[in-house]
Amino acid sequence: MGGLTPDRLSRYRELRRELGREGLINLNPIQRGGILTPEARRALLEFGDGYSVCDWCPPKTPRLDRIERPPVADFLEDLAEFLNLKVARVVTRCREGKFIAFSSLASPGDCVVVDSLAHYSTYLAAELARLRVREVPHSGPPEFRISPQAYQETLERVRRETGKPPALVLLTHVDSFYGNLTEAEEVGKLCREWGVPFLLNAAYTAGVMPVDGRRLGADVLVSSGHKSWAASAPTGILALGEGVAERVLRRSEVRGDWSGRSFPEKETALLGCTVMGAPLATLMASFPHVVERVGRWEEEVRKVRYLVGELERIEGTRQLGERPKRHTLVQVESEGFYRVSQKHRRRGFFLYEELRERGIVGIQPGLTRHFKLNTYGLSWEEVKLVAESFLEIARKYGLGIT
Amino acid sequence: MGGLTPDRLSRYRELRRELGREGLINLNPIQRGGILTPEARRALLEFGDGYSVCDWCPPKTPRLDRIERPPVADFLEDLAEFLNLKVARVVTRCREGKFIAFSSLASPGDCVVVDSLAHYSTYLAAELARLRVREVPHSGPPEFRISPQAYQETLERVRRETGKPPALVLLTHVDSFYGNLTEAEEVGKLCREWGVPFLLNAAYTAGVMPVDGRRLGADVLVSSGHKSWAASAPTGILALGEGVAERVLRRSEVRGDWSGRSFPEKETALLGCTVMGAPLATLMASFPHVVERVGRWEEEVRKVRYLVGELERIEGTRQLGERPKRHTLVQVESEGFYRVSQKHRRRGFFLYEELRERGIVGIQPGLTRHFKLNTYGLSWEEVKLVAESFLEIARKYGLGIT
Repeated sequence: MGGLTPDRLSRYRELRRELGREGLINLNPIQRGGILTPEARRALLEFGDGYSVCDWCPPKTPRLDRIERPPVADFLEDLAEFLNLKVARVVTRCREGKFIAFSSLASPGDCVVVDSLAHYSTYLAAELARLRVREVPHSGPPEFRISPQAYQETLERVRRETGKPPALVLLTHVDSFYGNLTEAEEVGKLCREWGVPFLLNAAYTAGVMPVDGRRLGADVLVSSGHKSWAASAPTGILALGEGVAERVLRRSEVRGDWSGRSFPEKETALLGCTVMGAPLATLMASFPHVVERVGRWEEEVRKVRYLVGELERIEGTRQLGERPKRHTLVQVESEGFYRVSQKHRRRGFFLYEELRERGIVGIQPGLTRHFKLNTYGLSWEEVKLVAESFLEIARKYGLGIT
Repeated sequence: MGGLTPDRLSRYRELRRELGREGLINLNPIQRGGILTPEARRALLEFGDGYSVCDWCPPKTPRLDRIERPPVADFLEDLAEFLNLKVARVVTRCREGKFIAFSSLASPGDCVVVDSLAHYSTYLAAELARLRVREVPHSGPPEFRISPQAYQETLERVRRETGKPPALVLLTHVDSFYGNLTEAEEVGKLCREWGVPFLLNAAYTAGVMPVDGRRLGADVLVSSGHKSWAASAPTGILALGEGVAERVLRRSEVRGDWSGRSFPEKETALLGCTVMGAPLATLMASFPHVVERVGRWEEEVRKVRYLVGELERIEGTRQLGERPKRHTLVQVESEGFYRVSQKHRRRGFFLYEELRERGIVGIQPGLTRHFKLNTYGLSWEEVKLVAESFLEIARKYGLGIT
């Protein structure tokens, strides 16, 4: 402990988040849906202490999902209703939800089908569950679409390869690269025809846009509280349909060989309880806002389409992914800004710095040729300021504007 | 969604924690070490938004443990130094740390040896990793001691049963039933002799008392930020010795069969990143305080011994577990209060209610014959008030005081 001097430790005493300042417009693609509501900020302080939600855990059947003060039990019922599935749990991360589904519904060595735009954590969750991954191809540039037809073909390929259907099919409802929205309902139908459980990764959709798990045919729906439900990290949502709920939430069967201790009330894959404090409180406190905001999704899509239209006025600049946009996450390709960067003394950092000077952050520093942004929850005024700022920077560096 | 009316949703708008009020003395056995510092409360608000710590994630090798603003990378190094082990990670819960160790260091079907006072989540983590659990017996009432000798015997029993040593040995450093401190160093030596990895569950020790992982012979040390590090839930600590670090933190080897995508920088068992926000910020912000407070452990032990001495003045009342106490978590047995409860119109609830009237909470409502409490971090004044309150209640109901 010789090195842990007061001087060294002082770095932890005043942790500041430079980009969280009021007045900044943050376009970070993973952060727009996770900005807390005022209610959630109050809940954070109220439930900041460790195990704060456990004050009134029912002593005879202690389990997070049964706590009534604060109303965790009610919340999980309402959450399941909101997603139109049978039962819901809060887990520590969306990726933990995927791992839980993979390890409950498939066995080591099984094949699982995932779209080729899946988040990296989807691949890791399958790897940790010792499954083999088979990918559904996308259509390539510029739209990178994932089609239900490609799912059909991949299912057939797996059957040819292994002699049976995959153990599970996963679709990333909206992907993190292009913000493409894939036709989950058709993939859901296909899964039903094949008799394969369907896992919908709604990390970028549930909580910001309307998502009806039953209509989409999801057996398992996972989402991310800190990505799309105005909640603190780490919070994941795991919602289950009737056909799989019991298997995924199966109870513990272990028994101590000497003591005889057993825990038949505990849900094994959850390791008992999950988010026992502040982030769960933020998820609950923001829930009324989330229920309301998904009804305003069409307006969010109008804003992103407006911004894309303005950005595409810049020489050599286009939106990648499906057209027209149906989600607020965008990948932009700009040969124009890239050419500027090659002659600029700050190289690719010029774009970040020019935006930063205009109060706009969240574009990854250094990128110009391909960069991502997300307009979710910005006001029209902010979206217009973002558009004007990009146009202004383009003009400043001599790029043509149509 | 018919049921999600504004009226129904209003229950989530103002979440309040009745027992978090200032002025209350909270004896809840799992909560004393998880009360936030003022620094942590500030950090909560600063990093409340989802993915708030990811603003400056290094784009080329994005990983939580490599972030320098806020100083996550530094913190993990300091954390490893504090615990005197090679490398540390923050995971979502202590139990996740156990599962990660179990699934990395043992294979399905293997035997793992655990003390019979282990937390239920230890059993669940082993079950989820598909391991067989073999328990180390305790000495029974009234002390319920776990001895290194009993570990030796259990290791021999496993070798007789399976023809080989267990894949891993776990010791709960201080257990959650009696607050007994077991001689980890001797169990560590035994494990080294047997060539078996040693997992120390320091959920109730690291963060409140000095714990030197290397000296105790721990290959893996897990702890709970929300239990013992003045942090918000969910936060777990996973610290690793040289011999096992690489196996536990092995990198991803999965590869997309169509896209060729791979993630060789990601740590598979962590599913990539873990606590991407507020609770990690609280853990970091409280760390200087934690480093300082473990040096005051002896004073904490003096306080609990004082309280036990006073409680045992009450007719029919004794402390269970090892004597004298070496930890602040206590289980009390009181035939005296139990007899009172049998005639009281509020039955067992009278004790909780009498304490509540005196500003003391955290004893489980309804319990009198056996109840647990924790004095960690209470001032001498508060400990004396607790002692006086118990004596006053005993007198009120006619119990003798020696």
